[in-house]
Amino acid sequence: MALTNNLVNPLLTDKYQLTAAYAYWKNRMHEVPAVFELFFRKCPFGGEFAICAGLGEALEFINAFRFTPEHIGAVRAVLPPDCDPEFFDWLSTVDGSCLKIRAVREGSVVFPRVPLLQVEGPLAVCQLVETTLLNLINYPSLVATNAARFRFAAGPRKWLIEFGLRRAQGPDGAVSASRYSYLGGFDSTSNVLASHLFGIPCSGTHPHAFVASFSGLGELFTDSLVALNGQYYDFVPRVLENLKGMKQLFDISSTNEGELAAFIAYAQAFPHGFLALVDTYDTLGSGVPNFLAVALALASLGYSPVGVRLDSGDLAKLSRIVRSMFCKVGERFGRDFGKLPIVASNEIDEKVLYELNRQGHSIDSFGIGTRLVTCWEQPAFGAVYKLVEIRGSPRFKMSEERGKATLPGKKYPHRLLDRNGHPLMDVLTNEVHPLELYRRENSEWHMMAGGPLRCRDPFDATKRFSVEVASSVPLLEYVWDGDFCPDARHPDVMIRSYVREQLAIFGEEHLRPLNPTPYPVTVLDSYYHSLQWLWQQQLPPREIQ
Amino acid sequence: MALTNNLVNPLLTDKYQLTAAYAYWKNRMHEVPAVFELFFRKCPFGGEFAICAGLGEALEFINAFRFTPEHIGAVRAVLPPDCDPEFFDWLSTVDGSCLKIRAVREGSVVFPRVPLLQVEGPLAVCQLVETTLLNLINYPSLVATNAARFRFAAGPRKWLIEFGLRRAQGPDGAVSASRYSYLGGFDSTSNVLASHLFGIPCSGTHPHAFVASFSGLGELFTDSLVALNGQYYDFVPRVLENLKGMKQLFDISSTNEGELAAFIAYAQAFPHGFLALVDTYDTLGSGVPNFLAVALALASLGYSPVGVRLDSGDLAKLSRIVRSMFCKVGERFGRDFGKLPIVASNEIDEKVLYELNRQGHSIDSFGIGTRLVTCWEQPAFGAVYKLVEIRGSPRFKMSEERGKATLPGKKYPHRLLDRNGHPLMDVLTNEVHPLELYRRENSEWHMMAGGPLRCRDPFDATKRFSVEVASSVPLLEYVWDGDFCPDARHPDVMIRSYVREQLAIFGEEHLRPLNPTPYPVTVLDSYYHSLQWLWQQQLPPREIQ
Repeated sequence: MALTNNLVNPLLTDKYQLTAAYAYWKNRMHEVPAVFELFFRKCPFGGEFAICAGLGEALEFINAFRFTPEHIGAVRAVLPPDCDPEFFDWLSTVDGSCLKIRAVREGSVVFPRVPLLQVEGPLAVCQLVETTLLNLINYPSLVATNAARFRFAAGPRKWLIEFGLRRAQGPDGAVSASRYSYLGGFDSTSNVLASHLFGIPCSGTHPHAFVASFSGLGELFTDSLVALNGQYYDFVPRVLENLKGMKQLFDISSTNEGELAAFIAYAQAFPHGFLALVDTYDTLGSGVPNFLAVALALASLGYSPVGVRLDSGDLAKLSRIVRSMFCKVGERFGRDFGKLPIVASNEIDEKVLYELNRQGHSIDSFGIGTRLVTCWEQPAFGAVYKLVEIRGSPRFKMSEERGKATLPGKKYPHRLLDRNGHPLMDVLTNEVHPLELYRRENSEWHMMAGGPLRCRDPFDATKRFSVEVASSVPLLEYVWDGDFCPDARHPDVMIRSYVREQLAIFGEEHLRPLNPTPYPVTVLDSYYHSLQWLWQQQLPPREIQ
Repeated sequence: MALTNNLVNPLLTDKYQLTAAYAYWKNRMHEVPAVFELFFRKCPFGGEFAICAGLGEALEFINAFRFTPEHIGAVRAVLPPDCDPEFFDWLSTVDGSCLKIRAVREGSVVFPRVPLLQVEGPLAVCQLVETTLLNLINYPSLVATNAARFRFAAGPRKWLIEFGLRRAQGPDGAVSASRYSYLGGFDSTSNVLASHLFGIPCSGTHPHAFVASFSGLGELFTDSLVALNGQYYDFVPRVLENLKGMKQLFDISSTNEGELAAFIAYAQAFPHGFLALVDTYDTLGSGVPNFLAVALALASLGYSPVGVRLDSGDLAKLSRIVRSMFCKVGERFGRDFGKLPIVASNEIDEKVLYELNRQGHSIDSFGIGTRLVTCWEQPAFGAVYKLVEIRGSPRFKMSEERGKATLPGKKYPHRLLDRNGHPLMDVLTNEVHPLELYRRENSEWHMMAGGPLRCRDPFDATKRFSVEVASSVPLLEYVWDGDFCPDARHPDVMIRSYVREQLAIFGEEHLRPLNPTPYPVTVLDSYYHSLQWLWQQQLPPREIQ
C-alpha cells in the first residue's frame, strides 16, 4: 500500500501548527514528550454509534511524513521572514519514526469521548501531524458510518451500489466515499478508479444519453446476434415480434423506437449483462415493454437478461407494477422473469429507504449517490485532536463550553462485555492496568472477569454505574511504533466483515434511526476523582461581579 | 498549471460510461458527432444564484485525458471478459484533442438551465469525460457559491479566513475548498498546501494545545526579548508588572499561569505576529488579561501586538466586552489598543453571521471552517451533463419528472442587459445568431441593441416576456479547441475580482438569503416553438386506462 493521494503531505496542514511548532522550538520544548488523543464528542446523524475509518491511510501519511526541500520552502513562505533559520534545519530532520501510535482497529464501532487514536512523541511533531490526521479520519469515519446506517435501513439482503462520484466533494471525496461506503456495508461502486485501487466490485449499466443517442432502428449496425450456442441469429426481428406481444399484453399503441434501438444495441454489446435504464421517456409505457421485448429475444438465444433500473418517479409503486409486468410476461412466454432484479436510484437516502419499506416495494438493489457520499444529513464528522499529557503530566482544555472540555491524561479505554460477549459500556481510565480490571500473577497482568465495577459519567456527578462485567477488551492497540506494527493493516474486505460482525453484536437498539439507545461511555471511579481534582486545581471558581 | 490531484485521470469515472462507450463502439456510433451540455436545475442553498467554478481544473483534465496501459488494464477488469479486444486498441488512441469545449468564464454568476459547459466531439469521447467533468465542477461551484453567500452575510469589510481543512471531505475537498472559497470572496486560508499551490494568503495563530502545553512560567526558556531597537530587554518581568495592573483594573484575583507562559513564549517567537487564542481556560477572567499583559510588554519594546481569537462562548457579547477591555487598557496605558483585531471562530455559518450582525458585535475577522467547506446547508451542487444533439439533430430526455426533462439542441445562451449594463435575464436559443439578437451587415454579424425581445419560460406556457434590451452578451466562449484556447485561463486572483464585480452588479435582490428574487432564464420565442414541437413529436400522450 502507499498513499492514495499526492495532496497528502506535510503541507496539508493548518498554518497554526507550523507557528506552534516554531514557538515550541524557540522555547526549546519541541522535543518534550507529549501525548495527543483523537476523539469525537457526538455521534453523527443524530445516531448513537459511529464507525472509525481512515486509519490505514493515516498511517501511510505518518510513514511518508517528511519535509522535502520544496515543503521547507513553502513553510518559510508562510512564516515571518525573521524566523530563526535553524528551525528549518530541524524541520528537515523530522519524520514519523519518533512517534508511537495506538489506535482502535480500523472499522471499529466507536462512541463519543473514547480515543480513536493516541499519538505519543515529541511535542512539536505530534502537533505537526494533527490537521492531516483529522482530515484523513473525519471523512472516512463519517461516510463509513453513513453507509452502515443506509445498510441498516435497506436490510441485509438488498444489493447497495455507491453512485456518488459526480456529486462528491472533489475527486478524493469521491474515491474515499467509494472505499469507506464499501467498508460500511455497501456491495459495490460505480467508481472505476476506486474499484481499481481497492478491489471493490464495480457496477454500472448505461446512461440516459445512451438511450437518447438513438432515434430509430435504422441506426443499428447489425440485425443479428450470436446466440449462446455460437450461431448467428436474426435478433432485431425477434425483438420486434416480441414487442408486438408486449403491446398486446399491456394494451400499448407504441413505444419509443430510439429507446428500443438503444436497448437492442446494448444487448448486442452485453448479451450477458443486459440491464436497461427504463425511464428516459416513459417507464411503463415505453421503457419496460421495450426492455421485455429485448429480454425475451435474448432469452430465446440462451442468454439471461439482467434487469432494469428506475431513476425517477414513484419508485415503490413503479417497482411493484414492473414486477407484475415481469411476472405476467414470464408466465405468458414461459420465461423465469418474475425475479429479474429491479435497481432503483434517484436521491435515495436513509429516510427514503425506510419510507419505501413502509410503502412496500419490489426493488432488489439501490444505487445511492449524493445523499450517501456527501453525508447530506450531516456533512462533517467532528473528531478533534487534543493534548492530554506532557512530560508525563495530564493536560486539558476547558473552553467556554462544557461540551468542548477535554478529559486530561493518557487514557486506556476498555470495552466491557457481558457473559454473551455483548458490549455493556466503554470505560476510560488513566492507568495501564487498573486494579478494577486486572490482577497481577507471577509478574504478569491478567484481565479480570466478574465483580461489579464502579464507574461514572465524567461530567454528570449524578450518573453512577455498578456493572457486572464478564470480560473486557482493551480498545487501543499499537499500530505504529516508529514503523508499522505487525498486523496493523487489514485488507478492506476483512475490515468490511469486521464492521458487519460488530454491528450485528451491538444490535438494533443502538443502530435504529429513531430514539436509539445511547451506549454508555464512562470513567472508572478512580479516574473520575483524579480528574475532578485536576479541573478544580487548574480552574478557580469564576468570579461574578 | 497542471492537474492538482493524481486521482484525476480517465478511471475517475462511472463504469456505465465505459459500458456505454463500448456499446457505441460496437454499434459503430462511437465517432458520431455529438454535443453534451453541463448545467444545473436549481440554485444551491435555497438561493437564486450560483458561481461557476472548477473550469480551469476541468480543462487540465481534458488536456491530460488519455488511457495509459495501466488504465486500459483497469477498464478491461471492469468490463466482461468477452468484450472485443479491438475496443481497447481504439480506447488507447483516445485523447482530448478531438473535443471542442465552450464554457462560461470561470467565476461567472450563473443560473439554472443555462449551459455552463458545452462539449462537442465524438459521441463516445464526450461520454467518457462526463463523470470527471461533473466531479470537477460540482464541488468547486458549490463552495464558491457558499463562500460568496458568507461574504455577502459578513459584509465587504470583514476579513474572512477559511479554516476547514480538518473537517473537509478528504484532502482534495480541503484543498479545493480553500481555492474556491478564495474565489468566492474569502481573504485567506489556514491551509498551507492550498496557499502554496494557488498563492492564497495564509492565516493562522496557535492551537489550544500550545496553551495547554505550558503549566507555568518556569517552563520559559528565556525571560528576555530583543526589542524592535535591537536591544535585549527583560520581558517576563514587564509582563508580570502589567498583569498586576490588569488584575487591578479588572478586579481579578488570578489568571492561569500556564496560559500566560504560553502567550509569552508565543510573543517571543512572533513579536510581530502576537495573536492569542484566549478561550482555553476562561476568556474574560484569564485569556484576555493575560493577552493584554503580554501585549503591553510587547508595545513597550516597540512591537504592535496583533489581537485575539475567540473560539467558544457568546461571540457577540464576548467581542463587545473584549473591545471595551481593549479600549480601557489602551486609555489607561496610553496605547492604541482600541482597534486591535478580534477574530472569532466556532461553527460559524451564514445564519450565525446574520445573527451576530443583528446582536451587534466587535468582531473584525471570522475564521470559518466546517459549515463553509462541507457546505453544510446543502452539501452537493446538482450539475448534470446531458446529450443535446447528435449528428446535428436535437436530443432530449423526458424522465418521469418534468424538472428532470432536458432542453433539446445545442444552445447559445445570451445575457440581456439594460442601458446601465444591469443584467435583465438570460435567454437560450438554438441558433448561433438569432435574428432577434443579431443583424448581418457586410457578411458580418453584429449584436443588436434595443427593440422589445419576445421570450418565454420553456416549461410554463403562461410565462411570456417582452424585454427592452439595450445590449446582450453571449455567455459561452470557446475554451478548448483540441487544445487550450488563448485567454481561456485566468489567474485565481483575477477570477476572484471578476466574481466580486459581477455580484456587485447583480445586487442584493438576487443575493439575499431570505426570499431572493429569481433571475429569469427564458428561451427565445422561436426556440420555444421548436422545442414544443419536438417534445410532442417524440412523446405521444400517455395512455391512462
